[in-house]
Amino acid sequence: MRTAFHILPVSTALDAELRHAIDRKTKPLGALGRLEDLALQLGRIQGTLRPVIQRPRVIVFAGDHGIAAEGVSAYPQEVTWQMVMNFVHGGAAVNALARSLGVDVEVVDAGVAHDFGPLPGLVDAKLGHGTRNCATEPAMTAEQCETALARGRERVQAARAEGCTLLAFGEMGIANTSAASLLLHKLRRVPLGVATGRGTGLDDAGLVHKRAVLARAAARTDGLTDGREALTEYGGFEIAMMAGAMLGAAEAGIAFIVDGFITGSAYLAAQCIEPAVRDHAVFAHRSAEAGHGAMLELLQAQPLLDLGLRLGEGTGAVLAVPLLRAACAFLGEMASFDSAGVSGQA
Amino acid sequence: MRTAFHILPVSTALDAELRHAIDRKTKPLGALGRLEDLALQLGRIQGTLRPVIQRPRVIVFAGDHGIAAEGVSAYPQEVTWQMVMNFVHGGAAVNALARSLGVDVEVVDAGVAHDFGPLPGLVDAKLGHGTRNCATEPAMTAEQCETALARGRERVQAARAEGCTLLAFGEMGIANTSAASLLLHKLRRVPLGVATGRGTGLDDAGLVHKRAVLARAAARTDGLTDGREALTEYGGFEIAMMAGAMLGAAEAGIAFIVDGFITGSAYLAAQCIEPAVRDHAVFAHRSAEAGHGAMLELLQAQPLLDLGLRLGEGTGAVLAVPLLRAACAFLGEMASFDSAGVSGQA
Repeated sequence: MRTAFHILPVSTALDAELRHAIDRKTKPLGALGRLEDLALQLGRIQGTLRPVIQRPRVIVFAGDHGIAAEGVSAYPQEVTWQMVMNFVHGGAAVNALARSLGVDVEVVDAGVAHDFGPLPGLVDAKLGHGTRNCATEPAMTAEQCETALARGRERVQAARAEGCTLLAFGEMGIANTSAASLLLHKLRRVPLGVATGRGTGLDDAGLVHKRAVLARAAARTDGLTDGREALTEYGGFEIAMMAGAMLGAAEAGIAFIVDGFITGSAYLAAQCIEPAVRDHAVFAHRSAEAGHGAMLELLQAQPLLDLGLRLGEGTGAVLAVPLLRAACAFLGEMASFDSAGVSGQA
Repeated sequence: MRTAFHILPVSTALDAELRHAIDRKTKPLGALGRLEDLALQLGRIQGTLRPVIQRPRVIVFAGDHGIAAEGVSAYPQEVTWQMVMNFVHGGAAVNALARSLGVDVEVVDAGVAHDFGPLPGLVDAKLGHGTRNCATEPAMTAEQCETALARGRERVQAARAEGCTLLAFGEMGIANTSAASLLLHKLRRVPLGVATGRGTGLDDAGLVHKRAVLARAAARTDGLTDGREALTEYGGFEIAMMAGAMLGAAEAGIAFIVDGFITGSAYLAAQCIEPAVRDHAVFAHRSAEAGHGAMLELLQAQPLLDLGLRLGEGTGAVLAVPLLRAACAFLGEMASFDSAGVSGQA
């Protein structure tokens, strides 16, 4: 059975009031640039003139990919579970960044090829020990895909119940740039030459090999336009679960931050499933991974940051959180020309 | 008497260790992009493998400009002192952003055309009731320029004595984009057509008029290469004081964040006075003000953010603080491949 997501477009009922509030702040019109867009978006999402960021949380979904067996990554598959341990112990980049910026971290095993046993700090949402090799067969079953979407939504509901008003999504999974490239290629007809990059650091020969493997995987299916079908054929468990989390966040009226290329591929699938997810999405950054530029262009997304990041884990999304905080702060706390007794334009 | 600044270039003695520490973190080589550059720079400046951001402070220098009488701004001159009151009362954009991001704000009267009387929260470093009209005569005396540089340094020393390890600079002063454009034009030969923008929001006719006024001002002097001389001829008190603060920060071994176009013009002058100031500078953002792109290119500066801001006050600099925090956090707190038991490249 298909998981239904009931997403309402954000209300624009407050737009006039929001724009008036933004324009009457003690600054030249438009002088806060992108922060003004963010303030408007957050005001719409939260349906208030004073949106707030409370208990922001990055959820890192981890999963393994059967296609790793084709040698498409610079790192061995065991790095996925080793990095999950690193997340749980607080030693990864996303942990350090999130701590320094006041963001909570949740780690979710969406389908890592490792038995963690009971491990405090790790949410067990495991759908399998990695996907199948999508170069030769569908990565998962349609049922697994539905379960992944549903479990993604559950993580959002849990966060919301704990008072979180802003979510950021990130991922870990050796070979998951391959899955992301395939989703971009199949759902949006981006040539594999454009959609495929070096991931964690392939050399030239590795990149040529990766492209050949992805071409084989792509040839397995005809054109795909259905988000669920694309996720089933090529997605990772962590990617499908992120898509469900995004849809769940939009359903719950919570803004979410999209990290980089792989998180972006989850968003691409989510948008195919329910286009209204758009209103709740904030794009964190332009990744250095080849293909992300084309993806952002297709999504007409203007990311907030461009720092040459290509790590995933939600690191870029976490770095965007202070900008959203700043947007709420200026909208909620700044004086107006009237209240501060400042003269307007001459 | 000239204020001498004794700036030592940052030591590169720790570079090998810093690079090794950065590269051994649990992430692909270079995957944290610009954050890795920041970590290296901060490690060099603080001379440690574990640089820290403590009590970051934005200092907002305010001053008035005689050239405002020529009608080069969209706002009346009284807005300068009104905004100073707004800063002191915590209602301006820089206050809201700084509060939300854990940055202290100091407000300095460098030379506002208003008598504030004793006002808690305002540092009195006043050099006069605004500069003279640089379209017709030097903006200030050489002695005033020296005093401005010295008082800028004093503000840094005060911040340092209170435990601040990161400074950000910003400004307020109606018509100070005119001063900044003239500094860029005279010190770096950028044509006024490129160096002059709309400031707080001039219309087309206003921009044409502003350019004509600046051309008249520029024609008053021959080419200038001396930072002090350029500040004396065209600078604002707040711009000269910022230049002194930048030189003072470099002298004290403290990193400082350069905000936008006007703060950038202070940096330009500071760099002419003492090129070694470079090592301690972090460029916050690409402003929407025309001329800033050319300025950044000349400085070979790669700003961290590009958010369409054009407000000044140090708002862009404050928004960059979390990125510096994140850089310190990853360098200081992330696990290495060895310590986390994560496999390296295959």
